[in-house]
Amino acid sequence: MSRMVEVTELVLRDGHQSLLATRMALEDMVPACQDIDQAGYWSVECWGGATYDSCIRFLNEDPWRRLRTFRELMPNSRLQMLLRAQNLLGYRHYEDTVVDRFVDKSAENGMDVFRVFDALNDVRNLRRALEAVRRTGKHAEGTICYTTSPLHTIDKFVDMAQQLQDLGCDSICIKDMAALLRPQPAFDLVRGIKEKCGPETLVHVHVHSTTGVTLVSLMKAIEAGADIVDTCISSLSLGPGHNPTEALVEMLEGTGYTTRLDKQRLLNIKDHFAAVRPRYAEFESKFTGVETEIFDSQIPGGMISNMESQLKQQGAGDRVKEVLAEVPNVRKDAGYPPLVTPSSQIVGTQAVFNVLMGRYKVLTGEFADLMLGYYGETIGPRDPEVMRIAAEHAKKEPITGRPADLLKPEWDELRAQALALEGCNGTDEDVLTNALFPKVAPKFFAQRSQGPKNVSQSAEQQAKAAAAGNGDGQRAAAAAPVASKVTYDVKIGDRSHRVTVEPA
Amino acid sequence: MSRMVEVTELVLRDGHQSLLATRMALEDMVPACQDIDQAGYWSVECWGGATYDSCIRFLNEDPWRRLRTFRELMPNSRLQMLLRAQNLLGYRHYEDTVVDRFVDKSAENGMDVFRVFDALNDVRNLRRALEAVRRTGKHAEGTICYTTSPLHTIDKFVDMAQQLQDLGCDSICIKDMAALLRPQPAFDLVRGIKEKCGPETLVHVHVHSTTGVTLVSLMKAIEAGADIVDTCISSLSLGPGHNPTEALVEMLEGTGYTTRLDKQRLLNIKDHFAAVRPRYAEFESKFTGVETEIFDSQIPGGMISNMESQLKQQGAGDRVKEVLAEVPNVRKDAGYPPLVTPSSQIVGTQAVFNVLMGRYKVLTGEFADLMLGYYGETIGPRDPEVMRIAAEHAKKEPITGRPADLLKPEWDELRAQALALEGCNGTDEDVLTNALFPKVAPKFFAQRSQGPKNVSQSAEQQAKAAAAGNGDGQRAAAAAPVASKVTYDVKIGDRSHRVTVEPA
Repeated sequence: MSRMVEVTELVLRDGHQSLLATRMALEDMVPACQDIDQAGYWSVECWGGATYDSCIRFLNEDPWRRLRTFRELMPNSRLQMLLRAQNLLGYRHYEDTVVDRFVDKSAENGMDVFRVFDALNDVRNLRRALEAVRRTGKHAEGTICYTTSPLHTIDKFVDMAQQLQDLGCDSICIKDMAALLRPQPAFDLVRGIKEKCGPETLVHVHVHSTTGVTLVSLMKAIEAGADIVDTCISSLSLGPGHNPTEALVEMLEGTGYTTRLDKQRLLNIKDHFAAVRPRYAEFESKFTGVETEIFDSQIPGGMISNMESQLKQQGAGDRVKEVLAEVPNVRKDAGYPPLVTPSSQIVGTQAVFNVLMGRYKVLTGEFADLMLGYYGETIGPRDPEVMRIAAEHAKKEPITGRPADLLKPEWDELRAQALALEGCNGTDEDVLTNALFPKVAPKFFAQRSQGPKNVSQSAEQQAKAAAAGNGDGQRAAAAAPVASKVTYDVKIGDRSHRVTVEPA
Repeated sequence: MSRMVEVTELVLRDGHQSLLATRMALEDMVPACQDIDQAGYWSVECWGGATYDSCIRFLNEDPWRRLRTFRELMPNSRLQMLLRAQNLLGYRHYEDTVVDRFVDKSAENGMDVFRVFDALNDVRNLRRALEAVRRTGKHAEGTICYTTSPLHTIDKFVDMAQQLQDLGCDSICIKDMAALLRPQPAFDLVRGIKEKCGPETLVHVHVHSTTGVTLVSLMKAIEAGADIVDTCISSLSLGPGHNPTEALVEMLEGTGYTTRLDKQRLLNIKDHFAAVRPRYAEFESKFTGVETEIFDSQIPGGMISNMESQLKQQGAGDRVKEVLAEVPNVRKDAGYPPLVTPSSQIVGTQAVFNVLMGRYKVLTGEFADLMLGYYGETIGPRDPEVMRIAAEHAKKEPITGRPADLLKPEWDELRAQALALEGCNGTDEDVLTNALFPKVAPKFFAQRSQGPKNVSQSAEQQAKAAAAGNGDGQRAAAAAPVASKVTYDVKIGDRSHRVTVEPA
């Protein structure tokens, strides 16, 4: 008898987020929903911070309407979302009752499985969101962000799993956002969790495929007892995305493991997204190969390409290597946070500043907050001298408690702010939209009635745009370095930082 | 202590053959040779039928000069080639002394490792070439073409390995040209060979990545004791190509296995081919995703796309599915040959004919020969009725002996033919070139003095060609089906078949 391995399909969230800059419109997902619903997945990931953001920023889609549509079209499926714990889907800590409200509304609108993570793996930041999920009766999945550093050991990750289990999680997720989880640690980590937390503990493994090794890691995780694994239909897989669902099915053939997936349904889903994908060509990740250098730098692919394009546009493209070399130093000074939203942007931007202006001569507010504990605790000690600079810069003291404990009730104020906006429909959902994306929501509310915009292009439209000489990318790359001083805009979440750089 | 796993680098032969239609010019390989030579590979695959053909057909390069250049630039490396046994690098059986001569000359010009395979896995066809290699003192690698069918079992493959060992092979290769080797059979097959032939028997595993599962298969093969595995540098990997070399290295980190590869050298090689690849964009395989349907059809990706484009050009594009469904029937009637050059073309073309003109109403000469034993023995019995049709068609009787036993000494005649050609330099190497590719060699000899042609394009050249409306592919795809009768040209090796098809 084969052991059943369950599968989460990522194509409706992380798949197009990783490969098509999260731009896929709901209308391009709808025709695949019936096959997805019937294919035999354990869950369907379909919602998260970037998809929510993209809905209101680019697609003029109400993200809550998208969720309700999925609920309607996939009545047999567990719908799954990625939740940044106390940050919800935004870039700051929210007060506890806002967290509760968001979870309640998500559950009401149809969400079944909440994968809850914190960028620093600070369990205190996970607690409230997990409790809120449990109160709704939905599936609460506690998440370990996998990373590597001199301090990250299998034992420490296993300890964290135990803490998550103590919070009553229904499952434990190992989230490998940068494709750093090699086969042997995948085996050791799953085995360790099963041994410590008990064999009945559900272990769910999420890996990206950037480094090319992680399908092997899934095999090893399964051999060690992993219960559920994440994959993406092959026509939106690989590169900075995920391992192909169909390959997982075939990989297990003849082993002691099997899935309940229907191959004909998978083929239908594959064909659908194979047809859709070319229309989003302009949003394709430029970083589509296998990139094993990530193992040495620990810098996720998306982060490198962001830094490269920022530096190039400012005429400092020749300093990319220095910045890449500085990232591990900044990460060490910050106590070795995992590099995932938002810590990846915070550490990356500080590395850029250190290279362009000298070490810690200029700090972003977010980096100061990270150093002072306002995002939570890191696994390692933070550098005392950099903490001193941060305190001076930010004019506040370091904290050691749970950051959200400092926050006062804010729902009434958030509600008042939203209701004042043109086009706000007065629902809690709209209040949450404005609370999460206060810079974007007002414009979205005002133009929502115009209905969804699909930003993809047909082949004819693409050819026309190309003929019209729409070659911005190439022009930017060919631009000569500016000789005089340049102004450098860096964006973290919704906040912009303007810095002026003068050549040495 | 970790066990050392050795690696063969494929980028100079099968890598660009699988991804860039074998078009890469020697000059684009030369700058990487020092890094390849120093990286720590067990061998460097760099020569074979398609590269030889491409040299004289498209690149005006002497393939023997290419080999000598590799020898000079990579003095520390084992150079490796793929040899179609009694077919050498051509499409027919050659008489034994021609086989000897080819092997001698290849060894003299610098070849070290001869991977010898037969499309039907008929060991009698492998014997002479392997003996010839052994006489030169070079490395003789006997090859099992891996495939799946109701008759192919691990035990039968293991028996074949034993027969190859009995012939004195220095190593046994498992060649998985269609990416059909799943992890569990990979484990079982390597384990079976080690148990039957002895643990000291070198097992070398070659897989393609088309189905997305074969890096896992390499892991399992290594766990079962495989000594050498084939990979291709990441910037020319995946799709119908191979697993990335760097991913193999990283996959093994922390396991009981390791490689001796130098990561910095690998990065240099990667960067070089990443820069070269875009210039060959027009030759890129259109079949670059993960294609697990191959497991059901057993039809290699390249074969499907060939058939599709042939059918489309003849206005019968809507019959692709029928042809795909017919391939397994033809394969069964033919005794379940593996599908690899030339059996894949022979079976595929017959399937096309069967669909367009009715079952076995028209036979190619090659298919008749296959049915009558003129390519050797197949694993299964061939269909008696189809054999009868074949005998009638070809006006010859079935044979059961080794096909090459029917051949008379032919070297003197081959030599005379070559010497009569303008530009032939009188060497045995030139005689062999004409013997292998008699339709192409005369033109090559005549224009050889013009020197190598690089068929790749710079970005500017590509843009110019695109602006000039060079969209043949799209025009062909958009062409309407012809309503009247069409003439259909099918090519196998150097022979062309013209057939007229009338719509029903």
